[in-house]
Amino acid sequence: MALLVQKFGGTSVGDLDRIQGVADKVKRFRDQGHDVVVVVSAMSGETNRLTELATNIQKQPTPREMDVLLSTGEQVTIALLAMALNERDCPTRSYTGGQVSIITDQAHTKARIQQIDTERMRADLDQGRVVVVAGFQGRDAEGNITTLGRGGSDTTAVALAAALEADECQIYTDVDGVYTTDPRVVEGARRLDKITFEEMLEMASLGSKVLQIRAVEFAGKYNVKLRVLHSMQEGPGTLITIDDEDVAMESPVVSGIAFNRDEAKVTIKGVPDIPGVASRILGPVSKANIEVDMIVQNVADDRTTDFTFTVHRNDYQRTLEVCASVCEELGAREYDGDGKIAKVSIVGVGMRSHAGVATRMFEALAAEGINIQIISTSEIKVSVIIAEKYLELAVRALHSVFELDREPVESSDVKAV
Amino acid sequence: MALLVQKFGGTSVGDLDRIQGVADKVKRFRDQGHDVVVVVSAMSGETNRLTELATNIQKQPTPREMDVLLSTGEQVTIALLAMALNERDCPTRSYTGGQVSIITDQAHTKARIQQIDTERMRADLDQGRVVVVAGFQGRDAEGNITTLGRGGSDTTAVALAAALEADECQIYTDVDGVYTTDPRVVEGARRLDKITFEEMLEMASLGSKVLQIRAVEFAGKYNVKLRVLHSMQEGPGTLITIDDEDVAMESPVVSGIAFNRDEAKVTIKGVPDIPGVASRILGPVSKANIEVDMIVQNVADDRTTDFTFTVHRNDYQRTLEVCASVCEELGAREYDGDGKIAKVSIVGVGMRSHAGVATRMFEALAAEGINIQIISTSEIKVSVIIAEKYLELAVRALHSVFELDREPVESSDVKAV
Repeated sequence: MALLVQKFGGTSVGDLDRIQGVADKVKRFRDQGHDVVVVVSAMSGETNRLTELATNIQKQPTPREMDVLLSTGEQVTIALLAMALNERDCPTRSYTGGQVSIITDQAHTKARIQQIDTERMRADLDQGRVVVVAGFQGRDAEGNITTLGRGGSDTTAVALAAALEADECQIYTDVDGVYTTDPRVVEGARRLDKITFEEMLEMASLGSKVLQIRAVEFAGKYNVKLRVLHSMQEGPGTLITIDDEDVAMESPVVSGIAFNRDEAKVTIKGVPDIPGVASRILGPVSKANIEVDMIVQNVADDRTTDFTFTVHRNDYQRTLEVCASVCEELGAREYDGDGKIAKVSIVGVGMRSHAGVATRMFEALAAEGINIQIISTSEIKVSVIIAEKYLELAVRALHSVFELDREPVESSDVKAV
Repeated sequence: MALLVQKFGGTSVGDLDRIQGVADKVKRFRDQGHDVVVVVSAMSGETNRLTELATNIQKQPTPREMDVLLSTGEQVTIALLAMALNERDCPTRSYTGGQVSIITDQAHTKARIQQIDTERMRADLDQGRVVVVAGFQGRDAEGNITTLGRGGSDTTAVALAAALEADECQIYTDVDGVYTTDPRVVEGARRLDKITFEEMLEMASLGSKVLQIRAVEFAGKYNVKLRVLHSMQEGPGTLITIDDEDVAMESPVVSGIAFNRDEAKVTIKGVPDIPGVASRILGPVSKANIEVDMIVQNVADDRTTDFTFTVHRNDYQRTLEVCASVCEELGAREYDGDGKIAKVSIVGVGMRSHAGVATRMFEALAAEGINIQIISTSEIKVSVIIAEKYLELAVRALHSVFELDREPVESSDVKAV
């Protein structure tokens, strides 16, 4: 008998049939004796419909009023799901974020949760009720409605699980778990039974967009057991858990291969090797609202150096324009770029204790004749930039070299409750 | 410089253009220096859309959840109207019913307002903001969302006006005021500059459905000046005001002619004239959820009496069925009915001090050869039941006899602010 927080996103509650399906699923957990708090998003399409209404009235809608408007999306879903559960003789009460005292700061449309009062939810659970809470929203200290920004429903679920000290926070999605890599690229891609928060963060930020990064960070910080599951299929999903020694010891060296096609790189050559150069290059870039991903600067040669960074491909042309003026101002020799690159990364907490992992990666790529343009590493990740055309080949080669298609030797003791 | 509460119904905010129009209107009042609190309904069609979603999930939706669902309708409107006003450099904040502490009882879907805390609205008004409040909704003492039932937005507006001690509560509708009778029946029907609450109540309940009766009662009780205006035309509308001596003295004898086509009458003949008979007849009728309008019992004759009442025409057949068994049980002689009748009433506080008003009415009808089937009177109203086919003729005759097509002699000092 566990306390579960279950989150269903917009697609999972996309129409009345789906909502009925979610009600069936929740009722099964209740019938097994679990206490359940359900967090739901707006029905898919609803947020866009409301946003369009707003932008027809104000090009830049007042953020405070945008939150009043958008928060109605989840409010419709909680009412309908509560009705569906009541219809199944499963006593249920629905609440907006504000009603269960999800207190946030005042940053409308991108608020951060500061505090949650669980008294009301606990009272309902104690009386055998299912509690349905609107994701993505809260209220500030003065009672104004706030929203957490897109994808905030994951964060709501994790925050509620932390506040309620739930046994598990289950995120229902349209995939049945986290994979060693994208199954559309590698046929042998395998669902992971478990993964650490850190690995998940590296995987998520690199394009395996199963969960909102913010929710994973939150779960790691408050040690909430997070599980990714399919909303319409049965299965244990993937457990995202704390990085303790046991997990690390048992982990395979590499857990997954992440990749990202949407990158472009820019290199400024012959930059004077003096302090403050990096900020004089990246300052104007970030001022232009361009987000930078990888940054690489090699050792200086002849008192000048080369400075490379990557950006989203949509920002490539604008980045080149910024670089033209930066190059002139700094007295750098020249700049050039490439809009047809891709990033491939191997991720795994096991790397920490295993030397030579990067070498095996580079050898595998070399064996396929793939040239590495940039390398960047962290404790649990090695990323390389290669020409985009080699992406699939590289991912398949690495997936095979690190034997990700084989089940790990240890028998998994992690099962969905 | 007045404090105005302005209410715009579902049709007045039916689409984005209409909402822009409402914003223009509100801004004009602001620019004149008035403080404005706006109450809005859900965009027309929205409540039906949401209700359909609910009934597809639950035949009898849980009332508490129905309120969570339906209250989103007005919440969308307040946000959009606040955006439109902000876009016009008219600083505005929107609030749900719960946010401005419209506290109701716990009767979900038909809650009654118990208390309103005006502190928050006053603070906004003091800072020069327009306050936009969602009509039709509130919250109970525990913070659950409640709704006031259909048409509740009028009640919200009046209640806010009472709590804020507003100078006027303006109800914007699709008519430009209250008329002496239906202009579709009588060409000379004239807009009234003012009318008393009591007259308005009699007019409204008799079919001139400009305002919710409940809102008029509320306004009368708390002495809120109520004005009915057209949402898309300019004009002073009709002021509904307290029935003090001055108003009554200046009032014409009859203020308006109300009528209702949807009536049917049933007569039980030869009922034993003993105590308790009325309740033994009407008990089974109300138990069958049939609402009774007029009730007439004449003096007994030969220890039996005739008992007549009217019902909505939709309930006529069911009423006859109830009467069959009642008739047998009471040992009454027989029963019959007529489904093709209409009710015509003259309404006016002036009647109180003028004898012979009823006689003038009866003479006017006799002059047109119209037979009166039933008569019922109150302090400020005389109603008759006639054959439906004479309805238009009767209304025109009475409108003319009581000179309602002429402007009253007194010059009106009541103007829209």
